[in-house]
Amino acid sequence: MRDKVNLAEKFAQLPEAYQPAIVGYMNDYKLIVVKIQDEFVWHKHDETDELFLVVKGRLTIQFRDRDVVLEPGELFVVPRGVEHCPKADEETHVVLIEPRETVNTGDAGGDRTVQPIEI
Amino acid sequence: MRDKVNLAEKFAQLPEAYQPAIVGYMNDYKLIVVKIQDEFVWHKHDETDELFLVVKGRLTIQFRDRDVVLEPGELFVVPRGVEHCPKADEETHVVLIEPRETVNTGDAGGDRTVQPIEI
Repeated sequence: MRDKVNLAEKFAQLPEAYQPAIVGYMNDYKLIVVKIQDEFVWHKHDETDELFLVVKGRLTIQFRDRDVVLEPGELFVVPRGVEHCPKADEETHVVLIEPRETVNTGDAGGDRTVQPIEI
Repeated sequence: MRDKVNLAEKFAQLPEAYQPAIVGYMNDYKLIVVKIQDEFVWHKHDETDELFLVVKGRLTIQFRDRDVVLEPGELFVVPRGVEHCPKADEETHVVLIEPRETVNTGDAGGDRTVQPIEI
């Protein structure tokens, strides 16, 4: 059995914004911590919903028709197939839950695509 | 698209300990908030892991060979098939993520079995 996960300790180990790190698994899902700062890329995941939970800071998930703003203790599930682009003015700590095979840039690809590290 | 979820607002709507409430879905998983106080029942889920995230209070997940104690900002994934029994001395706020069909008492059944409400 894995150990418990202290999220603050995990965020402290993250090297830079947009480098996702896997802190655990639940069935075929990965539990990710990621720091978000500035704007990511527009993308979608056609095969899966994606859960965002904000632990610190303030996250804006931009959609084509509106923004969703999340503060600590707030979560949002981006539905599959819906284009979105996260951004944050300050360093923001986010827990993501999504299937193990999900790629961070979804259908967009490009140079922001990275593999998660394990911490 | 559903609205964002403010966890504190959802916990404030919960009527009593051990009444789980669904606050959202991610694919075929349900996102549950539940208040835990005192001891639940020993049980296991043979088909699935189960994620516990503590938001407030202090949760002890008892296993047959050890206890895991979670404080706010800490999470633990109980592996499938492993007997466990949650307890808390004070009112503790917990987010659970598990497949939609998961029953709160797992294989144990009995009078602590309840259906989640939606809030």
